[in-house]
Amino acid sequence: MAHDIQIVTEAELRAAVGLDLTTIGIIEQAFAALAKGGVVMPPILSMDLHAANGEVDVKTAYIPGFDGFAIKVSPGFFDNPKLGLPSLNGLMILFSAKTGLVEALFLDNGYLTDIRTAAAGAVAARQLAPAHVETAGVIGTGVQARLQMQAAHLVRPFARVLVHGRDMDKARACAADLARALGITAEATADPAALVAESQLVVTTTPARTPVLKADWLHPGLHITAMGSDQTGKTEIEPAALMAADAYICDRVSQCEVSGELEAALASGLWTKGTPAELGEVIIGAKPGRTSPDAITICDLTGTGVQDTAIATHVRARFGNAGTIIRA
Amino acid sequence: MAHDIQIVTEAELRAAVGLDLTTIGIIEQAFAALAKGGVVMPPILSMDLHAANGEVDVKTAYIPGFDGFAIKVSPGFFDNPKLGLPSLNGLMILFSAKTGLVEALFLDNGYLTDIRTAAAGAVAARQLAPAHVETAGVIGTGVQARLQMQAAHLVRPFARVLVHGRDMDKARACAADLARALGITAEATADPAALVAESQLVVTTTPARTPVLKADWLHPGLHITAMGSDQTGKTEIEPAALMAADAYICDRVSQCEVSGELEAALASGLWTKGTPAELGEVIIGAKPGRTSPDAITICDLTGTGVQDTAIATHVRARFGNAGTIIRA
Repeated sequence: MAHDIQIVTEAELRAAVGLDLTTIGIIEQAFAALAKGGVVMPPILSMDLHAANGEVDVKTAYIPGFDGFAIKVSPGFFDNPKLGLPSLNGLMILFSAKTGLVEALFLDNGYLTDIRTAAAGAVAARQLAPAHVETAGVIGTGVQARLQMQAAHLVRPFARVLVHGRDMDKARACAADLARALGITAEATADPAALVAESQLVVTTTPARTPVLKADWLHPGLHITAMGSDQTGKTEIEPAALMAADAYICDRVSQCEVSGELEAALASGLWTKGTPAELGEVIIGAKPGRTSPDAITICDLTGTGVQDTAIATHVRARFGNAGTIIRA
Repeated sequence: MAHDIQIVTEAELRAAVGLDLTTIGIIEQAFAALAKGGVVMPPILSMDLHAANGEVDVKTAYIPGFDGFAIKVSPGFFDNPKLGLPSLNGLMILFSAKTGLVEALFLDNGYLTDIRTAAAGAVAARQLAPAHVETAGVIGTGVQARLQMQAAHLVRPFARVLVHGRDMDKARACAADLARALGITAEATADPAALVAESQLVVTTTPARTPVLKADWLHPGLHITAMGSDQTGKTEIEPAALMAADAYICDRVSQCEVSGELEAALASGLWTKGTPAELGEVIIGAKPGRTSPDAITICDLTGTGVQDTAIATHVRARFGNAGTIIRA
């Protein structure tokens, strides 16, 4: 039976949906729902395409009380820049949670993923970072380096940001962009240890396969969000740091075990603290997060289907019947 | 970077793509590719939505040499008929196998799945049924009961078809439709044992959770295709029948173990013949299928991502730039 499907392009989405406290609040509620139970979130479907130097992830989640659920497809094809194309693409499909009918297609080329990922970083900062952050640091110089700092600044309005990357030119460009976007002091640094030493909030945003942040660098009153690792074999934080922190919090334990920082910590035998808390459990108060200003906290974000369902239903509500309607 | 995406509706697809020997050949080639190696086909992402009496499956596969790969999303919401809506829906997304960019959206509401599923039944019949089939039987009275018989008739032009279902009215309606579509004798029967006894080719098309076809009913020169079971807990064929058959062939062993007929046979401990052959291995001659006219063969179809990639790339090639183009 034919029904109307709303199709919205990246340009239309960019014009209408941004990174703001509303979006952050919606992503926070999604994590809370995950902790409250009733959410159905199957393991990520992940397809590794060696022959094409690519990978594809499919994420989804059903959240009780939400009238839709999203299925998000994220291809990453890493030879694309040679062709003048971005590596990351994809789309989100919004289904009715009552009938399973396709309601909307968000042809976002990964934009909504960028937004919901940065929003999760802000949720982690709001829940776990010290109340006062003077200096924030970011390791990595890509899209998420910029968005994570912009998102964190909405909840911890720091006065200064430090940027580290292997390529100093890229680090300087990222710092310049952040200075302009946030109206604050921004500096590129070649020394990640100094960056961590001077920061109260650090976000790692790299696809590293060997740690970029050492356990020795931890200091009282530090919060770290590691958001780059999302595939088996990737790791940004030395396993010993997870044990040394007062609290190590996962977005989803079952994902962090196989594709987050916990993977390497378990493989090395260093992790002996049992099942970590999840971010949603901290949000609803079921598990402790930061317990003192001097505590050291780490949040491991691998990206969850609840974020996709939350952002997609938010966009749908905001859009009404805009975009192109196709009867199919 | 914005690029063109082709959007094709169910009505446009129905007008252009049908169940024919071309489609059957394409699905046969997809199974052959699966056996030749190099295919990447991750486990099905399956989400069970108890609260909505629904389920969602996501399938995909990358086939070397194909310039695209499909991701297929199939929601099944079983309270929909109460709302005047079909239970099954969904869409296929075709991605470039080189760049991962979305190339086409087939808003087919499950139509392409119907076609590629029936085509797989025809491949099984062509590979495994006796060379001469006088009478074919189908258990089940839904869309696939009709399509499976139409597909099988293209490769084994039987003169008579028998239809069994729990509801005799539906069985009679299905038989009437088949008589009209195929121009042959079609009869509804209340006795599935008699249906099997009189048939050389039987297809089971039910969502049964207790077997609808007994091992005692097997007879020389019989081929059975079981295509209804596609979820853990579903079973159509008595486990003893799998052992009693001369050949039991899976579309994909790893899927049949968890959601096909092999699941119950393994759980009961009855299956002791090791790893079954796959349909693709029979197609390329790597494993035997039917070895004599009197042999008893069973093919277990759970539905594979290679079928989706094969039908989607076929449709794309046939369509050129028809449908609606959206720049996103």
